[in-house]
Amino acid sequence: MLRVGIIGASGYTGVELARILATHPEVQITVATSRQYAGQPLSSVFPNLRERVDITCENLTPAELTDRADFFFTAVPHKTAMDIVPILLAAGKKVVDLSADFRIRDAAVYEKWYQKHSCPEVIKDAAYGLPELYRSQIKKCNLVANPGCYPTSITLGLAPLLRSKLIDPSTIIVDSKSGTSGAGRAAAVGSLFCEVADGFRPYKTGGTHRHIPEIEQELSALYNDDITISFTPHLLPISRGILSTIYASLDKEISEDELHGLYREAYDGETFVRICPPGVLPATQHVRGSNCCDIGMSLDKRTNRVIIMSAIDNIVKGASGQAIQNMNLMNGLPEETGLMGAPFFP
Amino acid sequence: MLRVGIIGASGYTGVELARILATHPEVQITVATSRQYAGQPLSSVFPNLRERVDITCENLTPAELTDRADFFFTAVPHKTAMDIVPILLAAGKKVVDLSADFRIRDAAVYEKWYQKHSCPEVIKDAAYGLPELYRSQIKKCNLVANPGCYPTSITLGLAPLLRSKLIDPSTIIVDSKSGTSGAGRAAAVGSLFCEVADGFRPYKTGGTHRHIPEIEQELSALYNDDITISFTPHLLPISRGILSTIYASLDKEISEDELHGLYREAYDGETFVRICPPGVLPATQHVRGSNCCDIGMSLDKRTNRVIIMSAIDNIVKGASGQAIQNMNLMNGLPEETGLMGAPFFP
Amino acid sequence: MLRVGIIGASGYTGVELARILATHPEVQITVATSRQYAGQPLSSVFPNLRERVDITCENLTPAELTDRADFFFTAVPHKTAMDIVPILLAAGKKVVDLSADFRIRDAAVYEKWYQKHSCPEVIKDAAYGLPELYRSQIKKCNLVANPGCYPTSITLGLAPLLRSKLIDPSTIIVDSKSGTSGAGRAAAVGSLFCEVADGFRPYKTGGTHRHIPEIEQELSALYNDDITISFTPHLLPISRGILSTIYASLDKEISEDELHGLYREAYDGETFVRICPPGVLPATQHVRGSNCCDIGMSLDKRTNRVIIMSAIDNIVKGASGQAIQNMNLMNGLPEETGLMGAPFFP
Amino acid sequence: MLRVGIIGASGYTGVELARILATHPEVQITVATSRQYAGQPLSSVFPNLRERVDITCENLTPAELTDRADFFFTAVPHKTAMDIVPILLAAGKKVVDLSADFRIRDAAVYEKWYQKHSCPEVIKDAAYGLPELYRSQIKKCNLVANPGCYPTSITLGLAPLLRSKLIDPSTIIVDSKSGTSGAGRAAAVGSLFCEVADGFRPYKTGGTHRHIPEIEQELSALYNDDITISFTPHLLPISRGILSTIYASLDKEISEDELHGLYREAYDGETFVRICPPGVLPATQHVRGSNCCDIGMSLDKRTNRVIIMSAIDNIVKGASGQAIQNMNLMNGLPEETGLMGAPFFP
Repeated sequence: MLRVGIIGASGYTGVELARILATHPEVQITVATSRQYAGQPLSSVFPNLRERVDITCENLTPAELTDRADFFFTAVPHKTAMDIVPILLAAGKKVVDLSADFRIRDAAVYEKWYQKHSCPEVIKDAAYGLPELYRSQIKKCNLVANPGCYPTSITLGLAPLLRSKLIDPSTIIVDSKSGTSGAGRAAAVGSLFCEVADGFRPYKTGGTHRHIPEIEQELSALYNDDITISFTPHLLPISRGILSTIYASLDKEISEDELHGLYREAYDGETFVRICPPGVLPATQHVRGSNCCDIGMSLDKRTNRVIIMSAIDNIVKGASGQAIQNMNLMNGLPEETGLMGAPFFP
Repeated sequence: MLRVGIIGASGYTGVELARILATHPEVQITVATSRQYAGQPLSSVFPNLRERVDITCENLTPAELTDRADFFFTAVPHKTAMDIVPILLAAGKKVVDLSADFRIRDAAVYEKWYQKHSCPEVIKDAAYGLPELYRSQIKKCNLVANPGCYPTSITLGLAPLLRSKLIDPSTIIVDSKSGTSGAGRAAAVGSLFCEVADGFRPYKTGGTHRHIPEIEQELSALYNDDITISFTPHLLPISRGILSTIYASLDKEISEDELHGLYREAYDGETFVRICPPGVLPATQHVRGSNCCDIGMSLDKRTNRVIIMSAIDNIVKGASGQAIQNMNLMNGLPEETGLMGAPFFP
Repeated sequence: MLRVGIIGASGYTGVELARILATHPEVQITVATSRQYAGQPLSSVFPNLRERVDITCENLTPAELTDRADFFFTAVPHKTAMDIVPILLAAGKKVVDLSADFRIRDAAVYEKWYQKHSCPEVIKDAAYGLPELYRSQIKKCNLVANPGCYPTSITLGLAPLLRSKLIDPSTIIVDSKSGTSGAGRAAAVGSLFCEVADGFRPYKTGGTHRHIPEIEQELSALYNDDITISFTPHLLPISRGILSTIYASLDKEISEDELHGLYREAYDGETFVRICPPGVLPATQHVRGSNCCDIGMSLDKRTNRVIIMSAIDNIVKGASGQAIQNMNLMNGLPEETGLMGAPFFP
Repeated sequence: MLRVGIIGASGYTGVELARILATHPEVQITVATSRQYAGQPLSSVFPNLRERVDITCENLTPAELTDRADFFFTAVPHKTAMDIVPILLAAGKKVVDLSADFRIRDAAVYEKWYQKHSCPEVIKDAAYGLPELYRSQIKKCNLVANPGCYPTSITLGLAPLLRSKLIDPSTIIVDSKSGTSGAGRAAAVGSLFCEVADGFRPYKTGGTHRHIPEIEQELSALYNDDITISFTPHLLPISRGILSTIYASLDKEISEDELHGLYREAYDGETFVRICPPGVLPATQHVRGSNCCDIGMSLDKRTNRVIIMSAIDNIVKGASGQAIQNMNLMNGLPEETGLMGAPFFP
C-alpha cells in the first residue's frame, strides 16, 4: 500500500483526488491538509466522500508532512507549491504537483507570466506529466508537473498533426470552453450560480491567459520549432468539462480517412485517448467523470483547414485523474489502476 | 465470470447498467438487446461507453436470448417485461426486472394502477429488491423486482420510523423531486432541454402517480397495517437525483439525538445508506453517480412533526445500481462489488 | 415623472428594480446607492443594463439621499433598512422597503426571529405590501413592507382556502423550492455554480427559517385565528423561481370544480394572479421574468387533502416586481404599469 | 392597430413573437396557426402566455389566412414558407419570413444547400432583414427575409472590419455557440434535457452548416468581394443565447482604441447594438430576453489577430425580436417599439 498525502485537499482537485483514490486498490490516503478546514473530516467538507474517505484535514508545515506519506499530491495554488515541493523532494518523497510552478521549463518565461520563481533549479528535474507524450520520463522522475487542463486538451489534440508536419503552425487558433470547476472553489461573485448559469462568455482574450506559455512550450516541442498560437478561453455553465476546438491550415493534402488513421495510429494502445470514428464528434458529456480524452476531427475542404475537437473532464484528465495516472507510473503500478471507470452519462 | 444480458440496453437504465458492469470484476456482458439500435455497438448509441463496453445491440426474441447469458436484467417498460421474464425463468435463468411488473404483490392492485397482468402466478416468486429490507429473500430468489426510484428513497427514509411506531401513519406526506432521467430517453416535448431547464414543476398530483401502490405496499409492510399517503412528484432541472421530503406527526416524544440514533442503528452496517450527522442535510449532488442513499432528519417542535429527507441517484440506487446490488446477492458475490465508487462532486 | 431612488442597487433585487423601471413610463431613476460600487455606472456592475439604465452608483448617507428622489426603494439587508427608512419618512418621502424590517407587526416576534428593532414605533405605519390582500391600505401608506418571496407564494396560495375555512389549519405543510437568486449576490461558497448546479437540497428545516413568522402572521390574519405551519425550503439549481407545494386536510367536502371556482372568484380581476385551469399545474418556467403568481390545485381524495401549488419569479413578484406594483399603488398610477411583460419561455 | 398573423405559432419563435407582441402598443394578433394544436388556445400550448395572449390556434390554408390579418410572420420551416409567402404577397399583405427561403439571393446557391426553390422569382423582391445594414430597403419592402440566428451575430460582428478592409478575409474563422432553443421544439432525442444538460459539443463541422451560404453572402457584400469562411457551431446547455467568437488576421495596424472607435462609430445611433467598453467582454446572460447584440473585441498582438465576440439572444435578435423590428420598419412605426425591454439578469 502506497501511503499518499494530499496537500490542499479542500479544493475541487483535492476532492476529486480523494474520490478516485477511495477505490484505488494500491493506495491509502494517510494525510490531507487544509488550512481552512483543519480539524474537520474531509467528508464533512465534501459530503459525497462520507463513509468512503476517512481522513481529517490538518494544517501542517511541509516539514511536518514529510513523514506522513510516501507520495504527495500538491493541489495548492501556484507560488504556494514552489515553497513546499523542494522540501518534500529533499526528504526523498515523490511528488505530483498540480500547480503551474514546475510546468514551464524556462524559468524566465515562467516569471514573465506568473511571478518570481523561488527554486528555478528544481524545474529541470520535473517531468511534464502528460503520459501519452512523456511516459518514460515520468516513470523515472521524483517530481512530475501535472499539466494544466487547457494544455492537456490542446496538446493531445494537436500532437499527431504537429509531429507529422501536416499543418502550418502559424495558423493555429484554439477556441476553448471550460466548465466552472476550473475557476476553483474560492468564493467569488463571478463564479456564483446566478452569474454563470444559463449563460456563456469568453474571458482572458487576446493572448493573456497564463496557460499560453505552457501550451506553446508543448506544441513547439512537438513541432521542433517555435509556435505561437491564438487562444481564447470561455466559461461554460457546466461543472466539469473542457472542449477545445482547434483550427489550422493544412500544409499537405490529406483525406478524412488518412487523418483518422493518423490519429488512431498515434494513440494506438493509449487507454485514455479515444479517437471518435469518422462522422462522430466529441462531447464533454461523454467523458464526464472519467480520465478519457475524446478527439474528433473534421476537414473543411472549402477553406483547406483541419478542425480538431478535443474533450476532457477538466478535473479528471485535466487535473486529478491525470495526476493519479502519473502517480501510477512513478510507482510502477499499472498506469490505468483506479482510473478505468467509464464516463457517466447522462 | 457471470455471463450477463441486458434486455433493453438503449435506455438510461441500460447505459447505466453497462457503465457500472464495465468495471465489475466478476461479470461479463454477453448480450444486449435493443430493437431500435439493433446492429449498432452500444457504444455508438452511448459514446461514453466507447472502448469501455464492447457489445453490439441485437433484436432477439426471449427464446433466442436464453442461451446467451446466465443472468438477465430486463430494463424494458412495464407490460413488456411480463412477457419476457417467465420465459427466462423457465429456462432456469435468474432475472432482475427493473420494470413495475413484479413489484406489486397483489395482482388486483397492479391491474388497477397499470393494466392486466399476463402472469400473476409469477409475482409471488419475486422478491422485492430492496436489499436493506429483504436481503435474505433476495439471496434465495430467481426473480427480483427492482424497486421504483421514488419507492426506494421513501421506503428507506421511513423504515426506521415505521418499525418503531413513532409516527402516525395517516399523517405521512411525501413531497418528492426527481431528475429528468426518470422520464426516460423517449423523444417527448415535455422532456426537451428547453422545457425543463431553468424551471421546476409538479406532475401527477393528487394521488395519481403509479408508484403510490408500491410505496404504500412497502410502508404498510413495515408498519404491519394499511397506510395511505399523500405523494407529490416534481420534475427537477437536473439529470440525476431524487430527493424526497417526508413529513409525519410524531406519536411519541423523541429527541433529535434519539432520532439520529434510531436511524444509525437501523442502518448499521449498511454500505449504501449513509445517515447525515445532526445538523447536516442530504443533497442530490452528494450522491450523484453512486449507489448511496443519504438520509437526514429534522424535528419541528413547533408542530410536533418529524421531517425525513432522503437523497438518491435515481438511475443508480433508484434503478441500475440497486439492480446490480441485487445481482450480487443473487449470485453469492459480495453485495458491494462494483458499486463502491464514491459520488461525483462537483 | 416620479423621481425614484434605489438604495442598495447592486444586489439582485436592485438590478431587477432597475430593469423593470427602465421601461416604466412614469418613472425616472434619479439616484442609486451602492457602497461597494460607488462611482461606477450601475450598467458596468450589471452589463444587461448597458444603454438602458443610465445611473451611477453613489455612497450616500440617508440624509444626503432625501432630496435626490421623491420615492425610495430600500433594497438593503434587514437591520440596515430600519436605520434608513425613518429618515426618509421624516423627510416626507414614500418608501417601499424590501427587507424584513417592517413586515412583522409584533416587534417582539420580529426581535425573536431577527434582532433588536431600532424603531418599533414605525412598524404600525407600514402596510404589508401584498396588493391582492391589502390594496386599500397600501394606497394610503407612506411605507410599505414588501413581502418576502416565500410568504408571497404561500399567502396567495392559501388565502381563498383560509378565508372560506375549508381546511384544518393545524395540518398545513408547506414544501417550498427556491431559485438561487434568493440567496443574493454575496460571494459565498454555498452559492457557487459548482455547489448548486445539477443538484438539489433542503436547508433551514425544522421550523427555523425566518420567513416563518411572516407567513404565520399572514395566514393567521386570513383565518382569524393563530396558525402554526411546517415549512421546509429547498434550493433549486435555477436562478429565478419559487414553487410552493402546500398540503392541508379538508374540513369540508369540496369538488375539484368548486375548488377551482373558489380560486377564480377570489382572484377575479387580479392581473397578476393566474389560476391554472383544471388539470394544469403551475411551473416556475411559466412565470419567469414576470410579476405573475400562477396557482394550481389538486384534490387527493384518497387522503382527503388539498394540494395547492403556487409559482412565482422570486425576484419579480417575490421582490422587485411586487415592490413596483406597490409603488404604482402608492402614487396613484395604474397598478400594472411597467409590469405587463409576459413571462419568458423558454 | 396593425392586425398581425403568426403562421406557425407553436414553435419557439412563435411563442416569442406572441410574447413580445403582447405588449406592443400598435399591434393586435388576429390569427395564429398551428396544425398540431388547432383548436387550442395558444396559451394552453405555452402557459407563460396565459391571460397575456388571447388567441386560439387554427389550421388554415394560406388562402383562408389572407383576410385575417394585414401583416404576417411566417414562422414555419424552410420549404413550407416558400409555398405560403407568395399567396400572402399576392393578396397584398406584408410578410416577414423567419425561414431561410428568401435569404439567399442566388437561387442556385439556395438549391445547393437546401432544396429546389418553388418561387425563385420572389427572392429578388425580398429585403434581407438586418436593419442595421439594410434599413432603407426593409422600409420599402413587402417581404423581408429575417436573417438566421448565427448570420445575425456574425454579420453584425464583422461588418465594421470588413467595410474598412482592415482584415484579410481569407483568414476568418468563426466559432459559434448556440443555446438549445435553436434546435426548435421538435421531439428529438438529441434535444432532450438529459442529452444536452451539463454538456457541450460541436455539430455540423467542416463547412456543412446551412447558415454558411447566408453568412458568406452577407460578408461578401460588405467586403465587395467573395469571402469563404470556416464556421463551427456548438450546442450550449442553455435555452437562449448565441455567442460567436470570430478570428481574423489584421491587414493593417490598429490600436485597441481605434478598434473600439471604429465599432462605436459604425453602430452609432443603433438602439440594439451595444459595443462593450474596452476591457469588457460580451456574455449571453447579458442579452437574455432582449433584442440586443453586444459586441466586444480584443487584439492579439502576439499573432496579429483581431478577435470579435458577438452575443445575442437567438430567439430575439436572432429571430422573433428582429422580425418585429422589421415589422416596425415596414409599417412606419418607430423601430424600437415593443423591443426596449432590458435583458433580464440573472
